[in-house]
Amino acid sequence: MKARVTVTLKTGILDPQGKAIEGALRSLGIAGVASVRQGKVFDIEIEGASDRARAEALLKEAADRLLANTVIENYRIELI
Amino acid sequence: MKARVTVTLKTGILDPQGKAIEGALRSLGIAGVASVRQGKVFDIEIEGASDRARAEALLKEAADRLLANTVIENYRIELI
Repeated sequence: MKARVTVTLKTGILDPQGKAIEGALRSLGIAGVASVRQGKVFDIEIEGASDRARAEALLKEAADRLLANTVIENYRIELI
Repeated sequence: MKARVTVTLKTGILDPQGKAIEGALRSLGIAGVASVRQGKVFDIEIEGASDRARAEALLKEAADRLLANTVIENYRIELI
């Protein structure tokens, strides 16, 4: 089974990387971008076929313990 | 207008970061993950209200020139 975990910064957390990208876009002459915030995405292949509940529990544990810093980041799990 | 650009490695391109995450998950005792591939996500706010075609052109230019390395990465643009 395939899944995607998307990790994004919580609202209010500063994102210097996003700010740098905003600046770089301006330097390149690409105007019209008001703000950029960067996050991470993990495409995960899970062994075994079709137990969605087990897969979701596994991904939640992986996200809580490794993929996301839940103090400053939110995550979303999608099974595909 | 809000948009999300998701950048992922092309098939066949090695992903050492993903491999490291696989190993870390195993070390944590989280079993059942066959593979992990990491990508990036950019949440972008575009100035001006509602010209979807203009926004898409802008995002395509940003992705081609800055956000993605199109030699090794694919990107997908979603307007929200």
